Amino acid sequence: MQLDHVGIAVGDLKRATERWQLLLGGSASAPEEVPSNGVRVCFLAAGATHIELLEPLGPESTIAKFLEKRGEGIHHLAFAVTNVDRTLAELAARGERVIDRTGRPGSRGRRVGFAHPAAFGGVLVEFVEVP
Amino acid sequence: MQLDHVGIAVGDLKRATERWQLLLGGSASAPEEVPSNGVRVCFLAAGATHIELLEPLGPESTIAKFLEKRGEGIHHLAFAVTNVDRTLAELAARGERVIDRTGRPGSRGRRVGFAHPAAFGGVLVEFVEVP
Repeated sequence: MQLDHVGIAVGDLKRATERWQLLLGGSASAPEEVPSNGVRVCFLAAGATHIELLEPLGPESTIAKFLEKRGEGIHHLAFAVTNVDRTLAELAARGERVIDRTGRPGSRGRRVGFAHPAAFGGVLVEFVEVP
Repeated sequence: MQLDHVGIAVGDLKRATERWQLLLGGSASAPEEVPSNGVRVCFLAAGATHIELLEPLGPESTIAKFLEKRGEGIHHLAFAVTNVDRTLAELAARGERVIDRTGRPGSRGRRVGFAHPAAFGGVLVEFVEVP
């Protein structure tokens, strides 16, 4: 299973993009607002996977709450799947906790869904439907 | 720059390996003790990158302290470089904080070195010298 990206919570998207670009090289995607998730995001390539930088759109964003509680840092791991609904259903059928029962719109026009951190030993895992 | 692996701190290596294998499929590497870093580790492939599970060897391990403070979860991101000493020196020359000034022995017989989390907005970044 491919690691699609690593999500990192940041306070300042522009500054974080510059910082990571210095390390990773290459170009960053244009910042994208995902109001349904309360975030503005930017992707940078890291070999075959990506770093996603997430800046909260407002104080109610889960990323704002994460920053308040833990500070900037790694927020989630996202894996590529062919059918996000099926993956979430399989997890739930195994008795694992999921945040989303079915997929919902995410960044880059893709459907996404989250497992509960309890399902992966404290790691917040996202599934991204990749064509 | 390739993401070599994502390091995840776990309390029970065997249980965590089984859990992640269920998601990722494939086989896990044989558990390896790295006494210099106070950890027992196991690698699983996730596409072109890897998940490294880290279990503390004892209470003085930095992973034991991480578990005590934050609980199980993502610990670091490791990027592949051709010369770990040079990468660390370049970071330090830019005024960034590093944990290691030069490389030291890591798992899989590779030289590794860590930047300070302050250098990457709260993300602990490791560099792994890959031939």
